[in-house]
Amino acid sequence: MGEALLDELARRVGAAHVLSEPALTAGFERDVSGRFGGRAAAVVRPGTADEVAAVLAACARAGAAVVPQGGNTGLVGGQVPRNGEVVLSLARLTEIGPLDPVAAQITVGAGVTPAALAAALRGTGLALGVDFAARDSATIGGMVATDAGGAQVLRHGTMRARVAGLEAVLADGRVLRRLSGLVKDNAGYDLPALLVGSEGTLAVITAARLALVPAPARVVTALLGLGALDEAVALVARLRAALPSLQAADVFLADGLDLVCAHRRLAPPFPDRHEVYVLVECGAPEDPTEALAAALEGEAAVADVAVADDTVRRAALWTYREALNEAVNAAGVPHKLDVSVPRAALAAFAAEVVAAVEAAAPGARTILWGHLGDGNLHVNVLGPDPAAHGVDETVLRLVAAHGGSISAEHGIGVAKREWLGLTRSPEEIAAMAAIKGALDPAGVLNPGVVLAVPL
Amino acid sequence: MGEALLDELARRVGAAHVLSEPALTAGFERDVSGRFGGRAAAVVRPGTADEVAAVLAACARAGAAVVPQGGNTGLVGGQVPRNGEVVLSLARLTEIGPLDPVAAQITVGAGVTPAALAAALRGTGLALGVDFAARDSATIGGMVATDAGGAQVLRHGTMRARVAGLEAVLADGRVLRRLSGLVKDNAGYDLPALLVGSEGTLAVITAARLALVPAPARVVTALLGLGALDEAVALVARLRAALPSLQAADVFLADGLDLVCAHRRLAPPFPDRHEVYVLVECGAPEDPTEALAAALEGEAAVADVAVADDTVRRAALWTYREALNEAVNAAGVPHKLDVSVPRAALAAFAAEVVAAVEAAAPGARTILWGHLGDGNLHVNVLGPDPAAHGVDETVLRLVAAHGGSISAEHGIGVAKREWLGLTRSPEEIAAMAAIKGALDPAGVLNPGVVLAVPL
Repeated sequence: MGEALLDELARRVGAAHVLSEPALTAGFERDVSGRFGGRAAAVVRPGTADEVAAVLAACARAGAAVVPQGGNTGLVGGQVPRNGEVVLSLARLTEIGPLDPVAAQITVGAGVTPAALAAALRGTGLALGVDFAARDSATIGGMVATDAGGAQVLRHGTMRARVAGLEAVLADGRVLRRLSGLVKDNAGYDLPALLVGSEGTLAVITAARLALVPAPARVVTALLGLGALDEAVALVARLRAALPSLQAADVFLADGLDLVCAHRRLAPPFPDRHEVYVLVECGAPEDPTEALAAALEGEAAVADVAVADDTVRRAALWTYREALNEAVNAAGVPHKLDVSVPRAALAAFAAEVVAAVEAAAPGARTILWGHLGDGNLHVNVLGPDPAAHGVDETVLRLVAAHGGSISAEHGIGVAKREWLGLTRSPEEIAAMAAIKGALDPAGVLNPGVVLAVPL
Repeated sequence: MGEALLDELARRVGAAHVLSEPALTAGFERDVSGRFGGRAAAVVRPGTADEVAAVLAACARAGAAVVPQGGNTGLVGGQVPRNGEVVLSLARLTEIGPLDPVAAQITVGAGVTPAALAAALRGTGLALGVDFAARDSATIGGMVATDAGGAQVLRHGTMRARVAGLEAVLADGRVLRRLSGLVKDNAGYDLPALLVGSEGTLAVITAARLALVPAPARVVTALLGLGALDEAVALVARLRAALPSLQAADVFLADGLDLVCAHRRLAPPFPDRHEVYVLVECGAPEDPTEALAAALEGEAAVADVAVADDTVRRAALWTYREALNEAVNAAGVPHKLDVSVPRAALAAFAAEVVAAVEAAAPGARTILWGHLGDGNLHVNVLGPDPAAHGVDETVLRLVAAHGGSISAEHGIGVAKREWLGLTRSPEEIAAMAAIKGALDPAGVLNPGVVLAVPL
């Protein structure tokens, strides 16, 4: 990378916000799993959307490729450099605008974390409606760029459903701004809708207008122990029908629980060990405990139940689920395959995928968890070297055979790029490439993410 | 248009489905308001998505421009020929697939009307969740292409929220198909999200996977008479907060009611005449009448109430609202300006727009109605010739000054194309044109709609 560009970037954002020392750039250059990353030409940390535009314009003029990065919590390698790109960190865009209580909307900078937003919304009766374990480090911009999901999708939808408008900067520095949040606004193509889930390849999101949901005054969480995954799927279908307040139905299995308990030095939740654990949560204006108890009444497949309705004990139950990612990362460098299948196929897929991985890579460990309401499973494979054994392809082909998606909520990134054709047709991929070429003709924005380069 | 193309089209779809006699094409060549239309080179009525693809490929090879048309209920001239184009009617794509009760989804052909879908869903406990007066003639394909709204948007969102997948044909005949309806599917750009609201300029929608909503077992409708629009806006804000079952809050004014009563020979709803009428509707599993009555208790601004909880009397109340379009069309050739403004600005905008039209075109009549929950007003202007007096521009500039949208739910079509820049920036319009150029490089698909030609 030329000194001239580094100098210009320093003039645009301040020298303190252009990092090139390895000691300072290291945290931006590798993902949390340790699987993806490379050297960055520099890490640039603009403080405003105008500075983002200036950085992109300068990089475009210099022909320098740019990798946008939020909280660096992505799991498919889409937010870390691969080949000496400029890392454009949006983490300093932390402005939280005033709440519009009539519209139940708020405009926030791309670098705002869900936790910071939740803190700002405390006492307003409103919430984001998207929640997952990385709430302290993920950013709204990254969540929009990857159409993040998480535990509450069965109630509130993915991030897409929360986006009422975006501000974003194109590869050449031009700014697109649509932040009015009008409920009905059919004046031309919905560019924000295209940018949601485009993984930083079409534009860099600098701010989002978010449509909020009512914050439940009372929340109750229950951890259930069951003997088989198909029973858990059927149970959750019944609970959804019976409980409008149901806002999460996450699943994990005995081997995942073992990893978490060992890693965090926790006691298991029940004296008995169960094959399947389901974490259900209800949120409502009034206490949903009785409704949940009534819905669980007579459910013979539920062998154990632990209920919590206060913050501390609820968090304790969620830890068994939310520490899974960290526990798996601590046990090795996992291949993380976030997939979805039609709900009716979920139990069969889960059984088949474990067998298929074992056949492809004898001795590999497959740890599964996910979201039963969405048919979304996180397939985590720990050594022996899954890449060498074609484990990714084995898993993703099985997903396609079940009519599923090779990426449920993490995106394609670089991890799954070569398998995009398993569930997207050549016509769809050609249309995506045409759109990429139209908005980023020089191909400088997150090259190699989602689509191969050259296009 | 060449005989060779006509012959090829006849071979592709059958001679009976290629219309060129004026007696047969007339109904496809002009919109219902009488304001927009022109001669078509031919009207082609394919019966399958494959035939649609064949028609588009043939037209592309011949360089013939194509105007897609659903039920010909559009109000901005986007679905009728302007200059000898081929009209591609999707009305024969009327297949309704099996209901997926677990996912609450159904796949339907582009030519299915909301009324036909409602009939197919009867007894299933599910509904489309998008409803408006043209339910017997509008089509799902057209509703997706224009991101149709209507009365229930305050509860269920616009058509965009109901689209779980699309099948569509590009200008050159290539088919994009994404109909799996997976809740989480972040594998590449969301092409269906881009096509929603693109008004037939990027691709021709042939089928939609629809996410359905619970059909309320009990519905109650109330017509309210009030003295002023600002009171009506404030009332609806309170009703929304108090009534989760609220599924419509439409408004019309005394002069609109007069037109409807004269046109349909109806008695007015109340002995007293009111300045403002609000039609509210609640739908719930149990009878919402008491909740609605409780919410209206003590609302001093409500001078008159008529409540109906059976189908016949509910339809009678809705007639006052739904016959407005027809009554205005019968009174002349109206300029129909469907706009939205922030809800807080709605009453002020309504007062100002009447005065502004009167100033621009003395003697013109401005009839207003709309959807109070969405800040959406339909501004209808009847002669003296509004076009000659720049009425459209007057109204749309006022919308922009209030931070609104020049198109709420009808789209841009050809009617508002020249004013797109009032609420979309040059950067946004350039991005739209780039996308149009990427997906339809020859510019044969609905040319002149949304964006000017040449791009």
